[in-house]
Amino acid sequence: MEASVLGCSPRRAESIPAKMPMKTNAMASIKSKTIPTKNYSMLLLRDIYYINKNLDVGMGDLLIDSESGRIERIGKDLPAAGCEKIEGKGMLAMSAFFNMHTHSPMTLFRNLAENMRLHEWLSKVIWPLEKKTSETDIYYSSMVAFIEMIKSGTGCFNDMYFHMEAIARASKQIGIRACLGYGMIDLNDEGKRDREMRECERVLKKYSNGKHSELITANVAPHSIYTCSKKLLTEAKKLAGSYGTTYNIHCSETRKEVFDCLGVNKCRPVEYLEKLKVLDEKTILAHSVWVAKQEVAIMGKRKCSVSHNPVSNMKLASGGEIPLPEMFDAGVNVCLGTDGAASNNSLNMFETMKTAALIQNQFRWDPTIISPKQMLKCATVNGAKALGINSGAIAEGKLADITVLSLDANLQPANEKTLVNAIVYSANPSNVKHVIINGKLVLKDGKITTVDEQKIIDEFNKRAERLASASDCGAEI
Amino acid sequence: MEASVLGCSPRRAESIPAKMPMKTNAMASIKSKTIPTKNYSMLLLRDIYYINKNLDVGMGDLLIDSESGRIERIGKDLPAAGCEKIEGKGMLAMSAFFNMHTHSPMTLFRNLAENMRLHEWLSKVIWPLEKKTSETDIYYSSMVAFIEMIKSGTGCFNDMYFHMEAIARASKQIGIRACLGYGMIDLNDEGKRDREMRECERVLKKYSNGKHSELITANVAPHSIYTCSKKLLTEAKKLAGSYGTTYNIHCSETRKEVFDCLGVNKCRPVEYLEKLKVLDEKTILAHSVWVAKQEVAIMGKRKCSVSHNPVSNMKLASGGEIPLPEMFDAGVNVCLGTDGAASNNSLNMFETMKTAALIQNQFRWDPTIISPKQMLKCATVNGAKALGINSGAIAEGKLADITVLSLDANLQPANEKTLVNAIVYSANPSNVKHVIINGKLVLKDGKITTVDEQKIIDEFNKRAERLASASDCGAEI
Repeated sequence: MEASVLGCSPRRAESIPAKMPMKTNAMASIKSKTIPTKNYSMLLLRDIYYINKNLDVGMGDLLIDSESGRIERIGKDLPAAGCEKIEGKGMLAMSAFFNMHTHSPMTLFRNLAENMRLHEWLSKVIWPLEKKTSETDIYYSSMVAFIEMIKSGTGCFNDMYFHMEAIARASKQIGIRACLGYGMIDLNDEGKRDREMRECERVLKKYSNGKHSELITANVAPHSIYTCSKKLLTEAKKLAGSYGTTYNIHCSETRKEVFDCLGVNKCRPVEYLEKLKVLDEKTILAHSVWVAKQEVAIMGKRKCSVSHNPVSNMKLASGGEIPLPEMFDAGVNVCLGTDGAASNNSLNMFETMKTAALIQNQFRWDPTIISPKQMLKCATVNGAKALGINSGAIAEGKLADITVLSLDANLQPANEKTLVNAIVYSANPSNVKHVIINGKLVLKDGKITTVDEQKIIDEFNKRAERLASASDCGAEI
Repeated sequence: MEASVLGCSPRRAESIPAKMPMKTNAMASIKSKTIPTKNYSMLLLRDIYYINKNLDVGMGDLLIDSESGRIERIGKDLPAAGCEKIEGKGMLAMSAFFNMHTHSPMTLFRNLAENMRLHEWLSKVIWPLEKKTSETDIYYSSMVAFIEMIKSGTGCFNDMYFHMEAIARASKQIGIRACLGYGMIDLNDEGKRDREMRECERVLKKYSNGKHSELITANVAPHSIYTCSKKLLTEAKKLAGSYGTTYNIHCSETRKEVFDCLGVNKCRPVEYLEKLKVLDEKTILAHSVWVAKQEVAIMGKRKCSVSHNPVSNMKLASGGEIPLPEMFDAGVNVCLGTDGAASNNSLNMFETMKTAALIQNQFRWDPTIISPKQMLKCATVNGAKALGINSGAIAEGKLADITVLSLDANLQPANEKTLVNAIVYSANPSNVKHVIINGKLVLKDGKITTVDEQKIIDEFNKRAERLASASDCGAEI
C-alpha cells in the first residue's frame, strides 16, 4: 500500500493520547479460557512427521518444555510421564509462520469496498473510517486478526500501526508472538516529527526486548521515504540502534514511489536509504517489488531483510515484479508477509507462499525458478532471523513455535518425499489442527484455547457495522 | 498442461480393457457411512445469509427437497416439521462451485516431483507411473480428489481422463455431481482414432444424460489440436451432437501450441477450431491463456465456454495472460477450473477465484478491472450454464448444490455489504461447514457423510507409495 499505506490519515498520530481509557468490562469478558486445559509443564508430540532445521522431513517425538517455551528434545520413544500428549499419526509439525509485514487492526476495513483505485479508497473509505476508530476498536480488530493468523498457522507477526497498547494487550492475551512498530509519518513537519519520535520511544521503552512480555518486542517503523523527512529517517535509525532493535519501513512498493524519488533525490529508493546509512542486517524493507539490479546488490551487501507481500501487491495492482532469485543470489534475507487484511484480504501465509512461488514461475516462464524449500524458508527461518528470535525451525533449544497440520485428503499422498511440497503448494488453513507458541498450545483441535473466539467476533462485528454506518465518507460501502 | 496434459502416455488408451476386474472387498469397505443420519426427505436451513441468483446477499430460510434434489422454497419462518434443520446463525449459503477443468485421478501424482520442466516431468515421472496405474488406483485417487473437492466447497466437476468407470463409481458413491469426458488422443493414427472413438461412445452410452445416475453425465473430450487429427476433432463433434452433450478440449494453453498451429495450419488454435466447425455454445475450451483478439471475437460469436485454470497455468509457467475483461465483453462464458492436482497442486476453487482476480489486477495495473461478483459468477453460474445443469445459483426450482460457509474470524466483518467480497478474497476451505449436492448433505459439520474418509486416505496413500517405489522412472521422486 501507498502513502497511506498504514491506511491511516497523516493526522491520526495527533489524536493518540498517551493513555487511553479502557472499557475494562468488555476486555475482562474475553479473558475467560474457553477450553479448560490441565496445567502440564511439558508437551509431547508422539510419532509425528516434522520439518527439521534443514527443511527435510523427519519422524519422531518432539518434547516441549512449556515453562521455558523451548523444544527440549527430539527423538524416539521419549518418556511421556507428566506430559500432555498429542498423538502425531496423520499429522505434520512445522515451524509456525512469521508474517513479516502486516497492519493487524486493518481487519476492521476488510472487504468493505472493493474495485476502487488506491487514492479514492483511502480518501473516501479508509481515512474517514480511521478518524472514528477508537482504541477499543483496535483491540477487537487485532484480536480478530490474531485468531485468523493462529488458525492459519502463524506464530509471530511484524506489525506497523498505531494504538500499540491495544495491539500489545490483545497479542499477549491470545498468546501470539509480536513485534510492534509504531508507524511514524511527519510529512516534513518538524513538530510532528518530534511527537512521532516521542511516541515511538515510549513504545520502545515499554515493549522492546521483551520488557513487557516474553511474547512481545517493539521496533522502529518510519512509514516510508515519501511520508518521512530525511531527518526522521536517520533519527529513527539511531533510535533503533540505541534499543538494539529492527528498522521496519515500506520501500519501493509502487512505480510512483520510485519515479518521485528519482525526481526529488536523483536516485532510487534503496539507493536513497543507503545514502542515509539506514540499511543493515537489522533493516526490514516491506514490498520492494520495484527495484533495480543495483538496489538488489545494495540490499545483499547490507544483508537487509525484505518482506515480500505478493497478495497485497497483486490486489492493489502495483504491477512490480520482485526479483526473488536475484535477491536469493545476492544474499538478501527474503521473508514473507500478508500486509493488512484491507488490502489482501486475508492473513493466510499458506496462500502467500504459494502465490509468491507461482508469480515467479509465471513472470519467468520457468517452472524451476523457485523451490518449495526456498519458499518455506522465507516463511519461517528467514522471518525469525530478521527479528532476531531464536525460533523459525524445529530443533532442540529453539523456541517452540510450532504449527501442527492434519494430513487430510488435500495433502495426500503424504510421505517424506512429498510433504515439503505439500506445505507450500497444497496446504490451506483447514489443515491447521494445533498451534504451539512459546511452548503453549494456543490452538488445540482447531479451537483457540486462550480467549473466546465467538465473543470477540460478535463484538468486533457490531463495532465494524457501527463504524461503517456512522461514517460520513459518502462511498457506498 | 501440454501434450501430455492428461498427464497420460499416448499409449495408455491401448491398455484399457472394456471391463477391469475390481477388488470388490476394498470397494465394499468404503461404502459404509461414517455418520449415521436420519433419513429426512426435507432439509431446512434456518435464518441464514445466502447468495441469491443476482449474486447479492439475502437472509432467510432455504427449504430443500432431498427427494427431488431441488430448492423447494426460499422465505421467512418456513415450517420445519419433518425437516432436518440446520441453524444458519453465523453461516452463509452459496452455490457449490463448478470445477470446470480437472483430471481427478491425478491426485495420485501430487507433490511427487517439483521444479521440473514439463517434458522432463512427464517423461521421467508421470508417464512411467501412469503405465503402472490400475483401475483401482484410479478409483482411490478419484475418491481422494472428491473428498478434497467437497471439503473445499465444490459440488460438480468436469473431468478428462481414462478408466471412466472407476471415476463414475467413486463420484456416485461419494455423491458429487460429475461430467465425465474420456480423453481422446490419436496422434494421426487411424486405428487408434477408431479405438478412441469407440471407447468414447461406450462411455457416452453408459453415462450421458444421467442414464447411469442423476449425478453423472458424460461429454466428448478430444484432448487437444496437437494430439488429435483433424478427423478425430470433427468426428468427435458429430458424436457430441448426436448425444446432445458438450465438447471439452484443451486449447491455447502454451505459446508452443500457438506457434506450432500457425506453422502447420496457418492460423491460430481458435481459428483452426472455427474452421473445423466445432465451436458453439456446447464447446468448453480449457485454458485459452494464449489467445489473440480475433480469437476472443470468435469465441464470443460462437458463445463458447472457456475454463480458466490460473493456478495450473502459473505453476507450469505457461506465461500466457488470459484476457478476461475482453472475454466478458465479447460474451464468452468464462468458467473456472483447477486442472489436475499434479499441476496445481490443489483442487481449491476459493484459491482459483482469488488467483484469477489477482493476476488480472497485476497484469493490467488496475485494481478495478475485475469485480468479485464476476469471479463468483464464473465459479458457479457460468459452470452450470456450460454443462447445461439447472444449478449454480440459489433460487427456487434450482437443483440444491449448496456450500455452507462458517463465518469465522477470517471472513469478518460479515454483513450484506461484505460477504460477496469475502467469498472471493477471504474465504478458504477451513470455512466450509456443510455441502449439499443434489439435495443431500454430503458434508456435515466438516465430515463426509457418505464414505469413510480415513479408510480411503490410508488405502490411497499405500497405493501411491507402492507405485512410486515400484517405478523405474529414474527420477528422484
